[in-house]
Amino acid sequence: MSLLITGSIGIDTVKTPFGTASECLGGSVVYCSMAASFFSPVRFMGVVGADCPFDLHKTFAGRPVDLKGLEVRSGSKTFRWSGSYAGDMNQANTDAVELNVLAEDPPIMPEEYKDSEFVFLANTNPALQVAMIEKLSSPKLIVADTMNLWIEHTRADLMNMLTKINGLVLNEGEARMLTGNYNLVAAGGEILELGPDFVVIKKGEHGSLLLTKEGRKFVLPAYPTASVVDPTGAGDSFAGGMMGYLAGIGKTDFDSLKMSIVYGTCAASLAIEDFSLGRWHTATKSDIENRREELKGMMSF
Amino acid sequence: MSLLITGSIGIDTVKTPFGTASECLGGSVVYCSMAASFFSPVRFMGVVGADCPFDLHKTFAGRPVDLKGLEVRSGSKTFRWSGSYAGDMNQANTDAVELNVLAEDPPIMPEEYKDSEFVFLANTNPALQVAMIEKLSSPKLIVADTMNLWIEHTRADLMNMLTKINGLVLNEGEARMLTGNYNLVAAGGEILELGPDFVVIKKGEHGSLLLTKEGRKFVLPAYPTASVVDPTGAGDSFAGGMMGYLAGIGKTDFDSLKMSIVYGTCAASLAIEDFSLGRWHTATKSDIENRREELKGMMSF
Repeated sequence: MSLLITGSIGIDTVKTPFGTASECLGGSVVYCSMAASFFSPVRFMGVVGADCPFDLHKTFAGRPVDLKGLEVRSGSKTFRWSGSYAGDMNQANTDAVELNVLAEDPPIMPEEYKDSEFVFLANTNPALQVAMIEKLSSPKLIVADTMNLWIEHTRADLMNMLTKINGLVLNEGEARMLTGNYNLVAAGGEILELGPDFVVIKKGEHGSLLLTKEGRKFVLPAYPTASVVDPTGAGDSFAGGMMGYLAGIGKTDFDSLKMSIVYGTCAASLAIEDFSLGRWHTATKSDIENRREELKGMMSF
Repeated sequence: MSLLITGSIGIDTVKTPFGTASECLGGSVVYCSMAASFFSPVRFMGVVGADCPFDLHKTFAGRPVDLKGLEVRSGSKTFRWSGSYAGDMNQANTDAVELNVLAEDPPIMPEEYKDSEFVFLANTNPALQVAMIEKLSSPKLIVADTMNLWIEHTRADLMNMLTKINGLVLNEGEARMLTGNYNLVAAGGEILELGPDFVVIKKGEHGSLLLTKEGRKFVLPAYPTASVVDPTGAGDSFAGGMMGYLAGIGKTDFDSLKMSIVYGTCAASLAIEDFSLGRWHTATKSDIENRREELKGMMSF
């Protein structure tokens, strides 16, 4: 089924213990669409400035990614992010950020995207996420991401957004901040009371946790790997694998959600093996499937 | 098969967001033996001072725990620990510690314990752990725990100890400190090069990771629960469930190790549901088995 992904497109500069990648392509909709494209056609939606040095048509060449929703805004500048990772690399330190075009109007949703059934709203201002939702004619599954900025500064908008989505994907620090509850199972339960039918709490190298309103739980370790070069885009690749899988099979039941988390986990484990989109340029569907089998083997008893 | 467990016996005072437990029974050999006793007879070894207010014969009444190795040392005082937990409760803050009898000679190993085949050496000075190992006539599986104190201050002794054991159990912070490697899979690999046949890295609420010298991996999430009252003893209960299971079936192959980690995880999840040994007084073997089934269900896909 149709999958719409909206989010940021960025010029990223990243430092990790393994090196530095300067001015490379990044952004949530880019990572997410890349991972999702292995499972489902993607309707891509994001905006860059006239200064954008990347040809996204080339980036996604040969992949089922519709770029009708890519807006190049003349007179505007592209979003830029510089970050670094140290230690366990579970958390990015933002060294510099220039919102640029992200602080302006959101991209316009093409008419042909409005009937999208599966929708992923990557992290952005929750008021914009709601505006996006209101344009959809027949959504079947709306999943959103969020971050500390909105939890702290636009809480009312965030609360409103939570009543309009089916699933929320966020990391453990955000889940704790949103609820004030340090226990992740309890925090997840509180988030479900705010609206969503399910919540996925991402724990980086420690895996993830899925909780549903019906009280079902799914816990999954991350794919254990020593090959972590650059964690940037791991969360968005996770969401991409997850949403791509669900849109690909057109289902939203609990067993499908579980399997989508597995594919998200495998996608994230690939994304972190190289800087920027490096690993996605070489990854195959078989790599993802092999990793799923391997992970299953490493947790069977 | 015979299971020997040595470690500390303490008078604990613990503060958590759920309350305070003052001057209650604690210590690694106590938690570990309690959990292990569901699976295997236990040979208990530890020392208290004459001031010890607890009757350990009463504590272990009705359980297959041999207390011949419990030494009550006149003229000495019992080990005391005061700690508190806040936030995600993944880490204890030590508020006060009195080593007392733990700073004196270790307990004497009863003659009848020397033929023990399965042995767990809870965290203590690695030189003492080695002295203990040298008393054993026919060990089949020796597993040890350690902590930051020994990693920092008695590194040579620790390195020697690592060449004499089959398995090391330690938490993620200790694994990182021991190797200087933040990636846990890589850190585990480096630990294996130091001697042990396998290493178990405990990650608290995030589960655990088993790595073996043959390059096999097993990852397991923790049992997801909102009922965390007091994490004290979780790690020792984990080790108890693990070692009790292995001694009970008398096996040390990879499949048995995996299952032992599962039982350790279930034992730890029970231990944290009440202060001190509270939960262990009511827990049944069925509680552990039910939890194993539940955990399996929550991670199946």
